[in-house]
Amino acid sequence: MYRPEIKILDCTIRDGGLMNDWKFDKELVKDLFHGLAQAGVDYVELGYRADKKQFPPSEFGPWRYCDEEIIREVAYECDTKVSIMCDVGRTDYDDFLPASESIVKLVRVATYVKDIDKAIHLGKHLKSLGYEVSINIMAVSHALEPDLDEALDQLAQTDFEMVYLVDSFGYFYSEQIHYLVEKYLAKLPGKQIGVHCHNNQQLAFANTIEAIIKGVNRLDATVYGIGRAAGNCPLELLIGFLKNPKFDVRPVFDLIQKHFEPMQKELRWGYEIPYAITGILNKHPRAAMAFMKGVHGNSYREFYDEMIMVDDL
Amino acid sequence: MYRPEIKILDCTIRDGGLMNDWKFDKELVKDLFHGLAQAGVDYVELGYRADKKQFPPSEFGPWRYCDEEIIREVAYECDTKVSIMCDVGRTDYDDFLPASESIVKLVRVATYVKDIDKAIHLGKHLKSLGYEVSINIMAVSHALEPDLDEALDQLAQTDFEMVYLVDSFGYFYSEQIHYLVEKYLAKLPGKQIGVHCHNNQQLAFANTIEAIIKGVNRLDATVYGIGRAAGNCPLELLIGFLKNPKFDVRPVFDLIQKHFEPMQKELRWGYEIPYAITGILNKHPRAAMAFMKGVHGNSYREFYDEMIMVDDL
Repeated sequence: MYRPEIKILDCTIRDGGLMNDWKFDKELVKDLFHGLAQAGVDYVELGYRADKKQFPPSEFGPWRYCDEEIIREVAYECDTKVSIMCDVGRTDYDDFLPASESIVKLVRVATYVKDIDKAIHLGKHLKSLGYEVSINIMAVSHALEPDLDEALDQLAQTDFEMVYLVDSFGYFYSEQIHYLVEKYLAKLPGKQIGVHCHNNQQLAFANTIEAIIKGVNRLDATVYGIGRAAGNCPLELLIGFLKNPKFDVRPVFDLIQKHFEPMQKELRWGYEIPYAITGILNKHPRAAMAFMKGVHGNSYREFYDEMIMVDDL
Repeated sequence: MYRPEIKILDCTIRDGGLMNDWKFDKELVKDLFHGLAQAGVDYVELGYRADKKQFPPSEFGPWRYCDEEIIREVAYECDTKVSIMCDVGRTDYDDFLPASESIVKLVRVATYVKDIDKAIHLGKHLKSLGYEVSINIMAVSHALEPDLDEALDQLAQTDFEMVYLVDSFGYFYSEQIHYLVEKYLAKLPGKQIGVHCHNNQQLAFANTIEAIIKGVNRLDATVYGIGRAAGNCPLELLIGFLKNPKFDVRPVFDLIQKHFEPMQKELRWGYEIPYAITGILNKHPRAAMAFMKGVHGNSYREFYDEMIMVDDL
């Protein structure tokens, strides 16, 4: 599938940081940025810009905050742009330089449908500073249809460049992806639509392909699929699928062999039955992550029955 | 997706045996059959019926031969039927009892397109003995289109019940699955079409869903995705997708926790970069399996370049 408009955003550090509290070594992040620049990746998202008053730096690694100085130590100005993410209500408006003074080019605002007014307010602030802005609506599989429609209608009135469809729980099958992509494209003419999938049911790559087929041009992926719980769409598979000659998968293989394969054995993202269970049942992965840490101590069968009953009256 | 015609065939022991020379403990296979019967699985394929003159029993476990006696030690007559597979040219016609004297109900003949005449000859022999017969055309991603068309036209003239589309190398994306399923359905009216996917690119489950959407009713899967190299469509995910009330996923979770999760750590089927590389490049996984055993000793990058160049002049 060669479509020149397609752009890949790597969110290895940002989403992967959910598995290690963003405690990645600076040298690793530098290797990553340089490798992904060689691979032709369009954006590299280096973390969150979290409010230090809410999230004490003693508890998290530097990529939870993405201070301008540390980003400049690992990244350089090139065709591969730096992105950061901020969560509605968890970021300080004063923590952003004007874009002209920052190496950051894109800021993505993560929000739930219910917080869309706050997300638009924050997005307008970032836009006024000169950043490219994306609104990433999380957990769409829990949104009521009229609420989602209204949020998309509101976003259509903004000058933000991008809106992302996010399958936070790894619940969607191809038919839901098709349905929602058609909705986003219809409601948001002139904007770039992106997709961010989770791999609970081994469908992150497949669903990303389905979004591409339906016209999505902004694609999230991570090296070796690192990300919260079951992880994300593996960058190496996505590049293997795209026939765009600007991409080269070899540097991604190098990063996997040097850094991410050993790391996976420790952090254990990827296919695990508790993550599959929350994906199948459209639940937040937090209970599965607790199960993986041995908090439950029950069998998979018991965990499954517990997850089924958790919303019962 | 509730379609009563859908039937699942579990090939855990047969395809998984490619990773351990079919050396599964009898107790494990018994647990498996009983668990899958509780789960409502329609067929359980317990191995190959290989010719002992070609494959000395000193080198392989019992599920490479599936003698009638050992099958009867692990399985019992119930709604869950026993299946076995035989490879064209690797089975002895005299090794099959009449179906009325056997616990085996279905025999699947694995063939390449080029051997379709031999497969039909063998299939007719099995049909004359009273078995249900399936022809599984392997490695379709290497078949020339006119050869495949001719093979399907020949199969249309037989009274075999089933023909399977097999993505041996884990190469296909959804669009190829759609295309081929439409072809198989059009050319084989009145026959059941099945699908057997490999997971090199994490697409086995996704492609199985795409086949279902296009009308395929016979679905191969394995517990925890065990199978050659990257493995197969995970049975637990497939049952999670199907809304047919006859299936229950809980016994599959029990089997995973008791047997297959520990086994995976030893046999290492599943997502690995060498398997992804052969999948992306539409190659047989044997080089990747050798790489995984440390035979190469090269980097992933070198393995990738070697696989790209292997067919060069």
